[in-house]
Parts: sequence; structure tokens; C-alpha cells
Amino acid sequence: MNADETYERGLELLQQVNGETGQQVIDSLGDVSPALGNQIVSWAYGEMYARENLPPRDRQLVTLGVLTALGGCEPQLEVHIKAALNVGLSPAEVVEALLHAAVYCGMPRSLNATFVAKKVFAERGLLPVTS
Amino acid sequence: MNADETYERGLELLQQVNGETGQQVIDSLGDVSPALGNQIVSWAYGEMYARENLPPRDRQLVTLGVLTALGGCEPQLEVHIKAALNVGLSPAEVVEALLHAAVYCGMPRSLNATFVAKKVFAERGLLPVTS
Amino acid sequence: MNADETYERGLELLQQVNGETGQQVIDSLGDVSPALGNQIVSWAYGEMYARENLPPRDRQLVTLGVLTALGGCEPQLEVHIKAALNVGLSPAEVVEALLHAAVYCGMPRSLNATFVAKKVFAERGLLPVTS
Amino acid sequence: MNADETYERGLELLQQVNGETGQQVIDSLGDVSPALGNQIVSWAYGEMYARENLPPRDRQLVTLGVLTALGGCEPQLEVHIKAALNVGLSPAEVVEALLHAAVYCGMPRSLNATFVAKKVFAERGLLPVTS
Amino acid sequence: MNADETYERGLELLQQVNGETGQQVIDSLGDVSPALGNQIVSWAYGEMYARENLPPRDRQLVTLGVLTALGGCEPQLEVHIKAALNVGLSPAEVVEALLHAAVYCGMPRSLNATFVAKKVFAERGLLPVTS
Amino acid sequence: MNADETYERGLELLQQVNGETGQQVIDSLGDVSPALGNQIVSWAYGEMYARENLPPRDRQLVTLGVLTALGGCEPQLEVHIKAALNVGLSPAEVVEALLHAAVYCGMPRSLNATFVAKKVFAERGLLPVTS
Repeated sequence: MNADETYERGLELLQQVNGETGQQVIDSLGDVSPALGNQIVSWAYGEMYARENLPPRDRQLVTLGVLTALGGCEPQLEVHIKAALNVGLSPAEVVEALLHAAVYCGMPRSLNATFVAKKVFAERGLLPVTS
Repeated sequence: MNADETYERGLELLQQVNGETGQQVIDSLGDVSPALGNQIVSWAYGEMYARENLPPRDRQLVTLGVLTALGGCEPQLEVHIKAALNVGLSPAEVVEALLHAAVYCGMPRSLNATFVAKKVFAERGLLPVTS
Repeated sequence: MNADETYERGLELLQQVNGETGQQVIDSLGDVSPALGNQIVSWAYGEMYARENLPPRDRQLVTLGVLTALGGCEPQLEVHIKAALNVGLSPAEVVEALLHAAVYCGMPRSLNATFVAKKVFAERGLLPVTS
Repeated sequence: MNADETYERGLELLQQVNGETGQQVIDSLGDVSPALGNQIVSWAYGEMYARENLPPRDRQLVTLGVLTALGGCEPQLEVHIKAALNVGLSPAEVVEALLHAAVYCGMPRSLNATFVAKKVFAERGLLPVTS
Repeated sequence: MNADETYERGLELLQQVNGETGQQVIDSLGDVSPALGNQIVSWAYGEMYARENLPPRDRQLVTLGVLTALGGCEPQLEVHIKAALNVGLSPAEVVEALLHAAVYCGMPRSLNATFVAKKVFAERGLLPVTS
Repeated sequence: MNADETYERGLELLQQVNGETGQQVIDSLGDVSPALGNQIVSWAYGEMYARENLPPRDRQLVTLGVLTALGGCEPQLEVHIKAALNVGLSPAEVVEALLHAAVYCGMPRSLNATFVAKKVFAERGLLPVTS
């Protein structure tokens, strides 16, 4: 597979997993760091996400864990909570993952992530979530 | 003590330490993660904060250190700077704690926390603080 | 459910998920912070892990993400990579989760976690892993 | 060199490296933590930045790395991306440094920093950057 | 106060708060970064710790919070848990502060810090601690 | 450039920048996560490090900043302090970069990184460093 094919695979996967939200991030990089946009498409999606050992649903559980723990990644959490829903996690599962994270990275990080989920769920008419 | 009693003790302590700000956080979780709200009341306050080995004023000093170091926890810092004032720390002591933290987690984290303090103090008519 | 029952449920779950490794951590806390040991059993396992919205395999994927991202949690990663195997993740899936995390928290954190996995897999005769 | 001279040297350097943006930060601390403002001027600039072993351009590369990795330091990144331009780094070099950081601290931190750079470059009429 | 006096005040305070452990850190920097050693003495102790708005016991509570939250600072935690004891915190209060931190930065960070405390307390014959 | 050529370019660059230390990391991944080893070679070096907008010396300054700030990356700091020397930074410049980082991420992270530098310099007979 050459560089162009990897890029194409990445673009397709980005579209599939993140919908238009992913494309908007890449677009907004166009005039400041097109190379970062390219690396996200080609590498993060075309190389890494495309690997077969873990299905998208499992990848999103790991990603939710990482982003919640990092903190300060609310924009990326928004993208990846949407992605989590897109690949088959239910709102209740997303919320439970963020609650579970509290044991390991504390209540504040879990709270911040949960309020991002609330925003995403509100936009999609998925509230209330019962837990 | 059964689960209901622990919850009640937590609610009382939350009210005492955080005033209405704490209750607002719990309320805003109601339609997205009531379980997270319950854990904050029952566990964080009813179990942990209620323990006797350290008085509230000391707990808030530790909390200010943790939240400043974590970064990206400005909403929680706002809640806990208010709590710090509620349990007897003076504005000058809060500001000094945040300044002290700079030695261990650097100037940017200390700056971000200090600007949260400024916002809280402004709302309460506690500015200027001299240090 | 009263406090004793929650503790019992936590102990059972800790045993099930973490085997003797979990118990060793609790034991080693006995002379310095038995309260921390109790909170891990009662709250982390008896309250949080015991919740039904997410099965153990999914919880471990989130936990691997959180611990990898935090950094400096090699002892806990060791416990939770063992737990991941105990609840049904394969070595290849664990390794893929840690690789996936690199996109979001960088190569060094992913490397450190992967070397913990190598140690665990070596002890259990699970090397080599092909990926 | 006495305390006043160190302060003066810091103020001069702050002005040189950060222009009015630096002074604004110090001013906004005046009514909440003048001591933090003093420490930034006297210590961060008068003592540390003033040292001779590393020129300002090199210092800003280190600073961009630190602030990107920390996360949640967008206000400080804004100040220091401006500083980076002031001491001779080109927009393309700044953007490349933030891209490079992605290898070590992950895509989300790199993205957040890059969008701060975009804001700074837009204000200064430096877009588009090609990379 | 001139630079020499600040250094002297810092050295005295370092000795008072950290005993010989602090001096050992400074000494071990002598052949690699004497400037870092000097900054710790002059700035961290002579300037910052010497300030009057917060007594040493309170400073150590903040420091324990910051170092626990940062993670990967076990050597500094060792120094500052010893310092905490030196300035009047009891082993039970130290352990409670580290337990309290778990609410805000999670169980793993709290565990790592608690095991450092166990090591310090063992060396000083302060085990068991009851909590 | 196809995938094989990118890998080859990465391997060459890894050898040039990190010497045998880099190759040892890749080798030690061989039986646990060869895919992680491949991504480091192909992507981190073949794609990212190989880019032209920033010379190796500048890249290492950014990397030192990132790794110091992350904390818990002592093994990677060792690799990259060696790399820093390999691409032309002097021991005094490395030490100054780590000292500079203290302003932004605090003394403990700076100390931990400096002691890694001390170990590297000792092995290479580069002590004492004067600063």
C-alpha cells in the first residue's frame, strides 16, 4: 500500500468513525498546519485505526479513557464521544466509561468529560441518560 | 451506617462545604449521569470528606494543590476556592497556596488557578488581595 | 445493601478480576493506610466495578487507556494488564490497546505501558505476541 | 546584583520577549496576587530567562514543548507563541515544533496548541502557513 | 535583602524543613546543574517558602497535594513526606491527605504516594499507622 | 515514497540520531509489540523526524521540553538526552534546557530530568557540567 492509498483509507475511516466532525478538524488545520491534518488522516486513521486487532468500539473505549485522563482535551472528547456513538456504544455505556475512569483519574476529570457527553447527547436528543 | 445515611451525611457536608455551588453540579448531572452525582455525594463527601483525621481547612489545602497541579480543572477549582473560603481559609491564604504550588508544578498552572481565584474573589467583593 | 455487604461484594470482585495481585496491594496497605485499602475494596470494586452498565472486559479497556495516559502508574498497569487477561482480553488485544493509545497520549507513555505488558506476558509464558 | 536590579532586568526582558502581552498578565495579577506577578518578573525572567547558556530562540522551543505537553495552558501558549515569533522563530518553525510534539505527547495536545498558533497567526496576518 | 542573604535564608530553611535529605539533593546536583541547586535554595526556599502568608505545615499539605497529583515524583514525595513530619504533620494526617487526594486525582496516584509514605514511616519506626 | 522506503529512511535517521540506544528499544519490542517498533521507525522517524522545517538540534530541544513536562518518561529522556548530544547540543545546553523547563513545569520534573542527564553524562565522561 503506498502513501496515497493509506491516505485514502484514512479519509474513509475518519468519515466512517467521526462523520463530518472529523473532516471539520482537518479542514480547520488547512491554513495553519496541513501537515498535522495529513498525519491525522494518514497515520492516526490510515495506519493505526485501520489495524485489525481491535474493533472500533473497543478503540473508542480506550480513547475515552485516554482523553478523560489527559484532561484539557474537551474538543477531542467531543469528537470521540460522537465517534463512540457512531461505532455502537450507547449513551449509557459512554457515561459508564467516564464514571469508571473516576476511580483511576479522579472525579474532576470524570466530571469534565461527562459534561462534554451531556453537550453531545443534548445535540442529538439523547437526554436523559439513566444510570 | 447504611447507604441512605451515608448519602444524607454527604449531602449535608456538601451543603456545608460547597454551599449551593456543589448542589448545582449534582443537579446538572441529573439527566446525564445521576450515578456520578450520587458517587460525589455518597462517596466523595459521605465517605471521604466525612472522615475525621483531617479538618476541612486542611482538606481544602490539599485539594487546591491537587487541582492546581492537574490543570484543566478550572470549574472544580472555582467550586473548591469557594469551599476554601467557606471553611476558613482567607483570600490571602488561598492565593499563597496557589503561589506555593508554582514551585512544584510551574508558573502556568499557578497562573490559571490564580485567575480562577480572582474571579471568585471579585464575585464576593474580596478584591484586592495583598500578598 | 449495607456497608458490610458492599465490602464483601468488592472483595469477591477484586478476587475475580485481579486474583491474588489485588489482594497483595490491599494487604500491603494494612499497616500504613488500611482506610485506602478499604476504599479500594468497598468503593472501587464494591460500588463502581460492580455496576452493571459495562462488563469487565470493557472496563479494562477504559482502565488501560486511563493508566497509560496518566503515566507513572506502572505498578497499577501491571495489576490491570493481569486483570485484562483475567477478564478475557487476549495479549494481542492488550498490546493493540496500548498501541492505539499512542495516537492520543504519545509514544513514550505507550512504550512504558507496553514494557509492563511484556513483563506480565513473560511471567505467564505468553510471549511472543504477534501484531 | 540586588533584588531591585534583578526585577529591572526581568521587566526589560519580559518586555523584549513578550511585548505588551507579558505586561498585561502581570497587570492582571495586581489585585489578586502581586507576589506571583513579582516572581514572574524577578525570577522567571530576571533570574532564569536572563541566564546565558541558552539563547531566547532555544528557550522558546523548550517552552513550546513544555506547554504543549502540559495541556490546559492555552493562555500561556498564546503568550509564548507570540514570544517565539518575537525572538526569531518563523510561523512554519512554530507549527513544526507543535507537530513534532505530537510524537511524544499525542495528537490532541498538538492540535490544541496548533489552534492557539492559528489564532495568534491570524491576528498578525501570518496565515496561511505552509508545511 | 541581597542575593547572598536570600541564599543564606534559603539554606537555613531547607535545613529546618528538609533536614539532611534536602541538602543531599542539592549536593547531588553539584556536578551536573549547580544552578538548579542554587535556584532551589535561593528561590524555592529563600524566596517562596520563606514568605509569611502560610506556615510550613500548610505549605506541606499543598505540596503533598501537588506531588501526589503530578505523579512520577516519588523522590520528591519522599523528601516532602519527611518534611511534612518535620513541620508537625502526624503520620495519620499525612496518610489522610494522600487518601483525600484520591477523590481528585484517582486511586493509582494516591496508592503510589502512600507507598512512599510507608517507606518513610518504616525508616522512622512510625508503622503501623491506624486510619 | 512507499512504505518500505519510509521505513528505511526512519531506520537510518533513528541510527543517526539515537545510535544503538534507539535500535535497542525497537529490538526489545520485537516479541511483544513489533507494530509499535515499526511505527516508531516508520512514522516517528521516517515521517515526522525526517521533515525538513526544523533541524534535529531544534527537535531535541522541543523533545526535552515535552518529556520533562510529561514526567515518568525517564527511559525516553535517557534516549533523547543522548540524542541531544548526538545532534550537537552541549551538556551545558541540555542542562540549561532542563533548568528552563522548571519555570513552566516545576522543580520536581526538572530535577528528575536533570538526574537522568547526570547518569548519561557520567557514562560518557562529561561530568562535571558548570552552569
